[in-house]
Amino acid sequence: MTDTKITLTESEMPTTWYNLIADLAEPPPPPLHPGTHEPIGPDDLAPLFPMALIGQEVSTERYIDIPGEVLDVYRLWRPSPLYRARRLEAALETPARIYYKYEGVSPAGSHKPNTAVPQAYYNAAEGVRKLTTETGAGQWGSALAFAAGQFGLDCEVWQVRASWDQKPYRRVMMEVWGAEVHPSPSDLTEAGRKILSEDPDSPGSLGIAISEAVEAALADESTKYSLGSVLNHVLMHQTIIGEEALLQLAKVGDTPDLLIGCTGGGSNFGGLSFPFLRERLAGKNDVIIRCVEPAACPSLTKGEYRYDFGDTIGMTPLIKMHTLGHDFVPDPIHAGGLRYHGMSSLVSHLYEMGLLEAEAIDQTECFDAAITFARSEGIIPAPEPTHALASTIREAARCRETGEEKVILTAMCGHGHFDLASYETYLAGELVDYDHPDAKIAEAMERVPVVG
Amino acid sequence: MTDTKITLTESEMPTTWYNLIADLAEPPPPPLHPGTHEPIGPDDLAPLFPMALIGQEVSTERYIDIPGEVLDVYRLWRPSPLYRARRLEAALETPARIYYKYEGVSPAGSHKPNTAVPQAYYNAAEGVRKLTTETGAGQWGSALAFAAGQFGLDCEVWQVRASWDQKPYRRVMMEVWGAEVHPSPSDLTEAGRKILSEDPDSPGSLGIAISEAVEAALADESTKYSLGSVLNHVLMHQTIIGEEALLQLAKVGDTPDLLIGCTGGGSNFGGLSFPFLRERLAGKNDVIIRCVEPAACPSLTKGEYRYDFGDTIGMTPLIKMHTLGHDFVPDPIHAGGLRYHGMSSLVSHLYEMGLLEAEAIDQTECFDAAITFARSEGIIPAPEPTHALASTIREAARCRETGEEKVILTAMCGHGHFDLASYETYLAGELVDYDHPDAKIAEAMERVPVVG
Repeated sequence: MTDTKITLTESEMPTTWYNLIADLAEPPPPPLHPGTHEPIGPDDLAPLFPMALIGQEVSTERYIDIPGEVLDVYRLWRPSPLYRARRLEAALETPARIYYKYEGVSPAGSHKPNTAVPQAYYNAAEGVRKLTTETGAGQWGSALAFAAGQFGLDCEVWQVRASWDQKPYRRVMMEVWGAEVHPSPSDLTEAGRKILSEDPDSPGSLGIAISEAVEAALADESTKYSLGSVLNHVLMHQTIIGEEALLQLAKVGDTPDLLIGCTGGGSNFGGLSFPFLRERLAGKNDVIIRCVEPAACPSLTKGEYRYDFGDTIGMTPLIKMHTLGHDFVPDPIHAGGLRYHGMSSLVSHLYEMGLLEAEAIDQTECFDAAITFARSEGIIPAPEPTHALASTIREAARCRETGEEKVILTAMCGHGHFDLASYETYLAGELVDYDHPDAKIAEAMERVPVVG
Repeated sequence: MTDTKITLTESEMPTTWYNLIADLAEPPPPPLHPGTHEPIGPDDLAPLFPMALIGQEVSTERYIDIPGEVLDVYRLWRPSPLYRARRLEAALETPARIYYKYEGVSPAGSHKPNTAVPQAYYNAAEGVRKLTTETGAGQWGSALAFAAGQFGLDCEVWQVRASWDQKPYRRVMMEVWGAEVHPSPSDLTEAGRKILSEDPDSPGSLGIAISEAVEAALADESTKYSLGSVLNHVLMHQTIIGEEALLQLAKVGDTPDLLIGCTGGGSNFGGLSFPFLRERLAGKNDVIIRCVEPAACPSLTKGEYRYDFGDTIGMTPLIKMHTLGHDFVPDPIHAGGLRYHGMSSLVSHLYEMGLLEAEAIDQTECFDAAITFARSEGIIPAPEPTHALASTIREAARCRETGEEKVILTAMCGHGHFDLASYETYLAGELVDYDHPDAKIAEAMERVPVVG
């Protein structure tokens, strides 16, 4: 049983990110100013982001060099391993060949540092001294805390109050790396004080935390804001995942027939899939690419493709995307990273072009898959990638029936070391699936602005 | 900045364990029967351990082949990376070259699966159906739970009640991998019931949990017991760490001047150091090998070398070792894995022979070192290896003064994802160091049996 892990040396690590937009007949529709409904320009974004990232956001270059200082930090955990899931295949008695690309080896335990590191680097290079951001359960906040420290930047994180209270360890992780963390709503911003004056016991929300982090960035010239998903440059930074996986599969002479990733904002999914999509557009493979989303938050399978706000309270530009309505509140599934009302503009655009397929799965089936995976492969996955796993296991079962030796590549974007409370609920038989949210979506869609 | 991680391919993974005893002029003194004070034989151990492991315990063969089935499971995370700590070196402004061998990449997050996997394998091969063990905070219990599952064995773990209550996530981890976990004392054993009848609210202890696990193993013919440190065969299984590190350092053409590991029972330390000690005994290097222990539990630096019980309540054979007295209770430092009153017989023997040096460090200095490490290298270490880190940082500071380009190899035996409560205490400025325990040691030593 050889080639359990397919590894690359540091000298084999890719040195460019891939910008899929260069290979599309038309780019995704531009974001619009929420007041004028005109396309926004670099000047609108300059108060929040450094010019290098704004340039990447609108770039049509096919490849962008990864700066040496970023590669140096990537080497702390990259290249990440590609696993042939031989023990899972045996447990499933499937003829399918299953591979998974594992991003849990990063210091923060997920794919998020792949973009946090370059974001911190470009900000530091332009003289920025502090980054602000929001975080829910803490995956993104901890990635940015780690990255900011590597480049001598201060980092201030607004963590949703409910998570701050229930899951203190992600906060401690951020503090170990030197970040300052506040529960949101806080009394440090106008936005926070307004909420607290109305409800001193507010549990907060990602929308409120974004407002606080943005306000703090705008209030200080040497401070900027950082976002962990959705934007084009964030998805592009993640493509190092797929570039590595291409090299790794080439080493064992395999080509995927099916690539599966979970989708929340789309950055892990885009990171793995875009380089394989490039190869498909060039006629080099026939891979089917599948997004898997929670049944409780089905933006691709049940949302509409139209302009909507990226945040809950309507502060951001309008973005053309698959949306459930910007104030749609998903049921409290454990995959917190997939509880987003929209989908990145780029992934939405690809789905509209017919380049991707999508399915939605309930969380109980996802945790069933997680246990099967942990008991065969050892790794305990975060709740988010269990969606990709559940779809993989469905497919492997089909292959058991048909005898097809399908090659499946799955995105395993992080470990579940900070998610064991959700496993405890599952093992106690107390995990619930929610009613599918069709009526709630229809209601939220009524409040989406009409554009054009 | 190349060669941050020095990796090996799976085909370069060592296929034998190294048995240091083959290279010693005399072996460690044998364990004695607690009643007769005569050396114990295989028959005394057979009710608890399979014959293959008993054979390894007394073997004088220099190398023992790692079974293919064990190698197959090792491949889920081995070979583990050796890091050149370039960012730590820069932070310390030291000319020293610091390497660390990182075992946190295993599914359980520490070096413990290196022995849990072969122990499960040999038991399964001899028809055993269930393994029992004890665990404190859960590092060993989770490693055995994972390993047992890989070979279709049931696993029953008695977890010290205080840990069960305070740190539920290691328990959930064991359950995810299929183990049954009980708080100890439990009402499932005579030993547990006796303690509970005297104190229904007993917080338990490792000694009590051992008694329960051993009783359960003895009560069923198809059940055996498993131990995670101290024994010769356990240390031998861990030597794959050092064998890999030798190959990795050879790739970059470096030889350590100083090797540093933390010591609790000695298995992580022995695993990294014994292959390097073999090379030294053969005249191939001049490495100084240093044990680092907590000032609150200084078995090598303050204990006596004599026969004592391995457990607290005096059920085990008598073992010749450095001991603080079998009922010495260390202060509640956060490095739970180093709170052991004794030291493995083999490491004690080597120390007596003058082959090792030792120092003891207070936990505040260890956590200082941990923060420096986390902010430079990214990895958040478990509290145990921070002892080796603190000693490494002391040495790097000396090199800064002298300009010496000393090559230091440090054992980084696990991550701290389940230890963030201790970091929280440290960051809050509430971490304490304890009075050094000389008087308490002298008192406990009065109860050590006199042998021979």
